Amino acid sequence: MSEPFYLSVATLGAAFRSGALDPLAVTKAFLERIAQLNPTLKCYKAIAEGAVAAAEASRTRHRSGTPLGPLDGVPVAVKDNYFTHDLPTTAGTTAPGISFPMVDSTPVERLRAAGAVILGKTVTHEFAWGTVTPPVANPWDTGRVPGGSSGGSASALAAGLCAAALGSDTGGSVRIPASLCGVVGLKATFGAISRHGIVPHSWSLDHPGPLTRTVEDAALMFDVLAGPDERDPATLLAADALDGGTAKSLAELTIGVCRRHFFDHVEPDVLGAVEAAIQFYQARGARVREFDLPLLDYGLGAIFAIELASSTAYHDVSLRAGEVASFTSDVRDLVEMGRLVAAPDYLKAEQYRTALIEGFRAVMEEVDLIVTPTEPLVAWPIGEWTARIGGEDESVLAASWRLTYPFNLTGMPAISLPCGFDRDGLPIGLQIAGRPFEEACVLGAAAAYESAHPWTGRRPPL
Amino acid sequence: MSEPFYLSVATLGAAFRSGALDPLAVTKAFLERIAQLNPTLKCYKAIAEGAVAAAEASRTRHRSGTPLGPLDGVPVAVKDNYFTHDLPTTAGTTAPGISFPMVDSTPVERLRAAGAVILGKTVTHEFAWGTVTPPVANPWDTGRVPGGSSGGSASALAAGLCAAALGSDTGGSVRIPASLCGVVGLKATFGAISRHGIVPHSWSLDHPGPLTRTVEDAALMFDVLAGPDERDPATLLAADALDGGTAKSLAELTIGVCRRHFFDHVEPDVLGAVEAAIQFYQARGARVREFDLPLLDYGLGAIFAIELASSTAYHDVSLRAGEVASFTSDVRDLVEMGRLVAAPDYLKAEQYRTALIEGFRAVMEEVDLIVTPTEPLVAWPIGEWTARIGGEDESVLAASWRLTYPFNLTGMPAISLPCGFDRDGLPIGLQIAGRPFEEACVLGAAAAYESAHPWTGRRPPL
Repeated sequence: MSEPFYLSVATLGAAFRSGALDPLAVTKAFLERIAQLNPTLKCYKAIAEGAVAAAEASRTRHRSGTPLGPLDGVPVAVKDNYFTHDLPTTAGTTAPGISFPMVDSTPVERLRAAGAVILGKTVTHEFAWGTVTPPVANPWDTGRVPGGSSGGSASALAAGLCAAALGSDTGGSVRIPASLCGVVGLKATFGAISRHGIVPHSWSLDHPGPLTRTVEDAALMFDVLAGPDERDPATLLAADALDGGTAKSLAELTIGVCRRHFFDHVEPDVLGAVEAAIQFYQARGARVREFDLPLLDYGLGAIFAIELASSTAYHDVSLRAGEVASFTSDVRDLVEMGRLVAAPDYLKAEQYRTALIEGFRAVMEEVDLIVTPTEPLVAWPIGEWTARIGGEDESVLAASWRLTYPFNLTGMPAISLPCGFDRDGLPIGLQIAGRPFEEACVLGAAAAYESAHPWTGRRPPL
Repeated sequence: MSEPFYLSVATLGAAFRSGALDPLAVTKAFLERIAQLNPTLKCYKAIAEGAVAAAEASRTRHRSGTPLGPLDGVPVAVKDNYFTHDLPTTAGTTAPGISFPMVDSTPVERLRAAGAVILGKTVTHEFAWGTVTPPVANPWDTGRVPGGSSGGSASALAAGLCAAALGSDTGGSVRIPASLCGVVGLKATFGAISRHGIVPHSWSLDHPGPLTRTVEDAALMFDVLAGPDERDPATLLAADALDGGTAKSLAELTIGVCRRHFFDHVEPDVLGAVEAAIQFYQARGARVREFDLPLLDYGLGAIFAIELASSTAYHDVSLRAGEVASFTSDVRDLVEMGRLVAAPDYLKAEQYRTALIEGFRAVMEEVDLIVTPTEPLVAWPIGEWTARIGGEDESVLAASWRLTYPFNLTGMPAISLPCGFDRDGLPIGLQIAGRPFEEACVLGAAAAYESAHPWTGRRPPL
């Protein structure tokens, strides 16, 4: 068997169906590679004992010609804030007194029903509240962070320790580590994918989503994950609108570029790569239209008010019980700070959000997609809490979600995909956002860029 | 012309159409009566100079056989928190620096389009934040409060100073004064009637609604007022559901009675009147089903958190500008207190509210309507801030909205209608709540009670 670690979901699935690869052998190979590399990368929290049995069942289905679909037999990693019936969920905390049900979350249930092999749980920044994800290392430079909070999933995928992974994105937590680890991360439209069985961070901002090696794989995962679920009311509200939209050819596209906010204080190599991507679209016939949205200047206060308040409301029982004192200090600070947000300010943040949604709605009447850098920077060294970008110091938390959180406030679909490397060989991410429920348009444009850029398949130096 | 002051909207409209009454003469008679009684009752804040011209135009339409509908020529009073193009809106405040646009709110626009004659603006408790409405007197005993915050509208209607009136209800502000003044008050389903152009109190709790002399009139007003309005998003969400439902015969009805909360600490005469009303329904063939909803025990904290926070968010610019220091002390206290609500507690209140809505939804699978007292007490003496009910002292604010606010939290339609008098001759109110958008069922059951109880037409001693 040729090495399966960097094959796409689509390729693996086809190889299983043709018999060129055996799901059991592939899962075993992944488990061996995890055993070999996880001590360095620390991206897996726990390995599923049932993975081999699940792979055997997939082999049986494939041998009898009855695979469950394109994901049957594909080894997938799950962020440790998704409930799983076979592995405890920790949400990245070691605080005593906190535990979660041993049941499958809806996305995990859907993956299993599609035949995917759950390899194990990946490390998350504690309660998904951060973009560092200790102690996980970035495969491109193990002295650097993988990003977060889905840092374990992104690291595992970039290192060839799974074929796809689940993450969750409240302010950028799928797209940030995807960008820093050089993989694809999709935050679908709010309500497209059920949050049932995922430890809440901020109800109105939380978006589950896949991390994959290719844009095509993101689409395959989205098809399995998306859809109404009685146990997540947001998916019921979204059900009528959820058809994924239709892709457009590049010549039909109008691409929006907003210099304000999205191109301020961005590292030069990132800026260069993203400008080149915009030129790529233009050269292939897309119209590029610049727009401005001054409201973006006020987004940080709004998302902080909403995220802090919602997180603290979720953790309030733990806060009163004293359990939050055992959280990691950065997360403890944030959870305790949420008590200081005044309700009238929370409401004003929600009003701002309504205005921002309306502002983007008006923009999206003129453009089909918005193209931005995913991150203003590349993976930073472990232990650094401040980055110098464009001549100004900024906390890495502030910098890392700066370009992603607007689409959590608006609920629009947004993808991050690899967009080359900086002078030190670290991955750069390109963000493409679209109209609500027009995932197909986002994925189509992303796939067109990806297929024209050969570095997509480049591997980290492991 | 026989005295028109206590005729219903339906009767007046029919008399205008038949020529038995003249709209101009009727409006002039109302204006004269206002001039005579308003110095005592203080229910009108301002009289519309254009009322006579509007009545003349109605006369012309009636004479040419082209009336605009059942409200054409009917004299209506408008609570002073609805914008009107011809009279300034004060929302009951005298604080300097606060003013409102001189445009018609949607409900006023709809009434004018239906031919109603706007007589003037009625006094509201300042910013609709109270249930006393100084300096308005209750026509049944001018030493007693009319209730609030729509106290001016209820007093004017009870005194025969208009044929119908507009109020607004955030925690009971239509139903409370309706109950204390012996008239009908309808809080329709949240989203049924546009709030555009009404000074906000708490966005998610505010319900505009009519006060009328009869249940039939409430239905006539509802038909004119309800419907989608681009400028109030809640009405767009409600548009599909808004068909008003269908009435049921009493023999088809199941009436729910919840002893918890709704029958605790209620004055004996009120309790007796409401028990008799329940027996009336039972005697006419309705099934009576007792139910319990323990969640009701926690409602006060939730509505206070939501109402304080929302009100303060609305007034925040005034608060920072120092204008709130000029508010009446009771309202100033409430607006300043809203700053102290923590956002996580606000969110927990909203979660409680979701649970309460779900609780009532389950109850309403078993019953068609819920019957309760509107108020646990009758109109209290002006200047008293505490009432003794069932052997316990309670603030009049706490007592007066105790039985009404649950249906602001849930958004269900609820009506208050006269239900006899206490030993001192003061009006008692019966509250009937129904399923969302089943106004017809609520109105039908209320009309059946009303038609069987001759005191409906009794007048205050003016």
